[in-house]
Amino acid sequence: MTRGFYIGRFQPYHQGHHRVVQEIAEEVDELVLGIGSADQSHSVRNPFTGGERIMMITKALVDVDLVTYAVPIEDINRNAVWVSHVQSMSPNFDVAYSNNPLVVRLFEEAGIEVRGSPMFDREVLRGTEVRERMVAGDDWADLVPDPVERVVHEVDGVERIRQVGDTDIDSPND
Amino acid sequence: MTRGFYIGRFQPYHQGHHRVVQEIAEEVDELVLGIGSADQSHSVRNPFTGGERIMMITKALVDVDLVTYAVPIEDINRNAVWVSHVQSMSPNFDVAYSNNPLVVRLFEEAGIEVRGSPMFDREVLRGTEVRERMVAGDDWADLVPDPVERVVHEVDGVERIRQVGDTDIDSPND
Amino acid sequence: MTRGFYIGRFQPYHQGHHRVVQEIAEEVDELVLGIGSADQSHSVRNPFTGGERIMMITKALVDVDLVTYAVPIEDINRNAVWVSHVQSMSPNFDVAYSNNPLVVRLFEEAGIEVRGSPMFDREVLRGTEVRERMVAGDDWADLVPDPVERVVHEVDGVERIRQVGDTDIDSPND
Amino acid sequence: MTRGFYIGRFQPYHQGHHRVVQEIAEEVDELVLGIGSADQSHSVRNPFTGGERIMMITKALVDVDLVTYAVPIEDINRNAVWVSHVQSMSPNFDVAYSNNPLVVRLFEEAGIEVRGSPMFDREVLRGTEVRERMVAGDDWADLVPDPVERVVHEVDGVERIRQVGDTDIDSPND
Amino acid sequence: MTRGFYIGRFQPYHQGHHRVVQEIAEEVDELVLGIGSADQSHSVRNPFTGGERIMMITKALVDVDLVTYAVPIEDINRNAVWVSHVQSMSPNFDVAYSNNPLVVRLFEEAGIEVRGSPMFDREVLRGTEVRERMVAGDDWADLVPDPVERVVHEVDGVERIRQVGDTDIDSPND
Amino acid sequence: MTRGFYIGRFQPYHQGHHRVVQEIAEEVDELVLGIGSADQSHSVRNPFTGGERIMMITKALVDVDLVTYAVPIEDINRNAVWVSHVQSMSPNFDVAYSNNPLVVRLFEEAGIEVRGSPMFDREVLRGTEVRERMVAGDDWADLVPDPVERVVHEVDGVERIRQVGDTDIDSPND
Repeated sequence: MTRGFYIGRFQPYHQGHHRVVQEIAEEVDELVLGIGSADQSHSVRNPFTGGERIMMITKALVDVDLVTYAVPIEDINRNAVWVSHVQSMSPNFDVAYSNNPLVVRLFEEAGIEVRGSPMFDREVLRGTEVRERMVAGDDWADLVPDPVERVVHEVDGVERIRQVGDTDIDSPND
Repeated sequence: MTRGFYIGRFQPYHQGHHRVVQEIAEEVDELVLGIGSADQSHSVRNPFTGGERIMMITKALVDVDLVTYAVPIEDINRNAVWVSHVQSMSPNFDVAYSNNPLVVRLFEEAGIEVRGSPMFDREVLRGTEVRERMVAGDDWADLVPDPVERVVHEVDGVERIRQVGDTDIDSPND
Repeated sequence: MTRGFYIGRFQPYHQGHHRVVQEIAEEVDELVLGIGSADQSHSVRNPFTGGERIMMITKALVDVDLVTYAVPIEDINRNAVWVSHVQSMSPNFDVAYSNNPLVVRLFEEAGIEVRGSPMFDREVLRGTEVRERMVAGDDWADLVPDPVERVVHEVDGVERIRQVGDTDIDSPND
Repeated sequence: MTRGFYIGRFQPYHQGHHRVVQEIAEEVDELVLGIGSADQSHSVRNPFTGGERIMMITKALVDVDLVTYAVPIEDINRNAVWVSHVQSMSPNFDVAYSNNPLVVRLFEEAGIEVRGSPMFDREVLRGTEVRERMVAGDDWADLVPDPVERVVHEVDGVERIRQVGDTDIDSPND
Repeated sequence: MTRGFYIGRFQPYHQGHHRVVQEIAEEVDELVLGIGSADQSHSVRNPFTGGERIMMITKALVDVDLVTYAVPIEDINRNAVWVSHVQSMSPNFDVAYSNNPLVVRLFEEAGIEVRGSPMFDREVLRGTEVRERMVAGDDWADLVPDPVERVVHEVDGVERIRQVGDTDIDSPND
Repeated sequence: MTRGFYIGRFQPYHQGHHRVVQEIAEEVDELVLGIGSADQSHSVRNPFTGGERIMMITKALVDVDLVTYAVPIEDINRNAVWVSHVQSMSPNFDVAYSNNPLVVRLFEEAGIEVRGSPMFDREVLRGTEVRERMVAGDDWADLVPDPVERVVHEVDGVERIRQVGDTDIDSPND
């Protein structure tokens, strides 16, 4: 049995993430999706709460033939302990998936196998693109799986990101 | 659609928790199991990591006819913001289940419906009992669902709790 | 102009505190009441929030002939920086009032004048007494100034402390 | 009785804030001024400590016909719990005043009434302007109420901001 | 070249610690002394600051024929990341020395060699004993190396522990 | 006996720092080198851990005729308590050395003597320069003392900074 670990902020979970998961599904039996910066929300960069992102991922993966876990990972703000923090919050995993150079480095220094993916590079789709379209009032629904679209609507997500996106405000005291 | 929320430390997830979940299953369509003190581990009171407890719960509930989410909740150490913290880390829920008086009070002050359960009171089984048996070398396996027993063995849990239980040490500096 | 500083948890602000303030009023022109553990609430030891305690103090002192400030001080959990923390959150002060040996020591090491008070020692009345009466259903109202009694009622404080006091639970995960 | 809540960093409390308070005074009986980022100081963006800002506000409002509370609010760095944090540190309030889109959003999601103000928009005066004048050695005193000017002088504030403003240094390790 | 790691709170560094270091000196070329709970001070259990303990250790070891490092380790309050935290704050080490069961377990789970020591067990001398003698006014100086006695006097340590030891107060809000 | 305190991030410890230490050595008997942002690592700005920097400093100063202490200082993110934090983690010192305007200001407000140094100003060499050369693959070894070069190689430091420097990523969630 092989279990993989795939970290992202998933703000929101989009088609690019979804294709990566489908690709990983051919290599592992179970996959943990670690939701980074789970404690951050209500900003342009991190509009959705950890719980909302759990919903998106769980609903989007319900028909994928893979045992998956959606695990919120709060920021710990110390790179040197980040791998241990992730390991303590996640079911054990055998291989990590990432193209983020820092994540790759941290896992490698900890002796954990890391795999990149051609899909990652081809992935022109980025969370930034989805969020910018939401703020601008452009079409964004095609960029995410249908269940994610429904979650965004349920939490009034477009209105939220547009409202906080009026300015570059990230905290209540800006 | 009704979604419930059931908070516990699940150190470990045992038959008492399991019966409560089965009882709740008759009232809700989906259930979030919030894993409290998710950042605590390797002590007699909190032997298992958040990730290990996710494993226990997920494996134990695989055959229960209920959509479930196992969500680690790190301690925030401020009762007045605890409900908001839980809400931000969890999928939305309509009703909370607890017999813990503080949890009941906090949810009530936040205007969230809380339901107790006769099962909770009849539940003589407590996590303390399971952990004490582990430390003492007594039989404990019957007190937990089979998949939980397997997780405990995989992570060498009995040896861990016995080792840290030699003393009343809770931190590396005691 | 002399400004004093008087630290306490004020759980709740009671007649003992009030007599101390009246005594101090004869020595200073202005007085800061530092509300310690301002981030703690909803436990037997700390039932009231920082904001509720601001209300109690402000309302109780409205007729005292002294300029007063009620300043919440969050716990910082490092004694060595506690004085700096207090100083940064409070208007400047010339003298601190306390009979707590640790507070006296910390202020003295920082070179700040500390004054004890005979009143402190005669003060048989302690917050513990008030809280125990609330939990037990005994008379407590005579132990606090009238405006404090009103604040306690407004926030449903007696019911809160009785509810969380059913057990010795201090956190939602106990 | 109506109590309002007005959040700001008040670095420093200036004429723009003062006019807003006077406007709010016509709508409420009591007003809480929440001092945001109360734990930040000694930077160009946040030159004054929480305690110094309490002084500014209290002294400036002494002649305003309104019961006011100056309450320091430390940063909590999680937008999803920020409203609960504010509520726990402040006397209860019925309505919040803000034109900050994030603050408005957070209060609205929590079901709290928020009122904007034409005054806010007309308010060309910003804290940035006051601080830049202080750094540059230009006249700034007319931009703040007289008691605030006195507090700034007492704490040697202009020299402080000029000194830390020599560079764009925000922490001792830059 | 072999480098060892020896963790303790060193409140204060006493003859028992000193004999352990001398024993370890025969096995390693360099030794890191990790000062646990470095952020705690001014309590009966943790009377001395991290900096004061650096002084004690450095001065006591000046004549020991071993390259030593005295490294303060702040509490991180999450056992699962404690080893990574220690590793990030310490020069690399090959072997850890401890008889604390939790420390042994954490290092073992991280794949780091841990050695106990007969000396540890024979070591009837404990920090508790030294501190209790200080509080009681009994002779304590023989229990510590001479340079430690001098440091204790320089920082007025006996008076400090006696003063905070009048009660069982651990925080300024007790 | 005079003890000095010199704060820096030492990312890495380079010839500029080394000349400053040699200059200070003529004025003091002992010198504490405070390693700022000790909890930060694995980023372009802060590539090395606190422990790695202790190694660099200790090894580089082994032949300097001065008693030195290398003390990691974790970030505390509140300027108003920073001096107390530093004082609690460091052996007592009589004079601080810095040209950082914020550090100078904070020490001055705390009544501690601060000395700048002509050397600091002449010091064209900055940590940024060393790190940029590492990332770019240019010669950097001449900019640091030989023992520092060895430490960098032992921890595979150049490869680390080049890897995390591929992007402007500072946290695992960027």
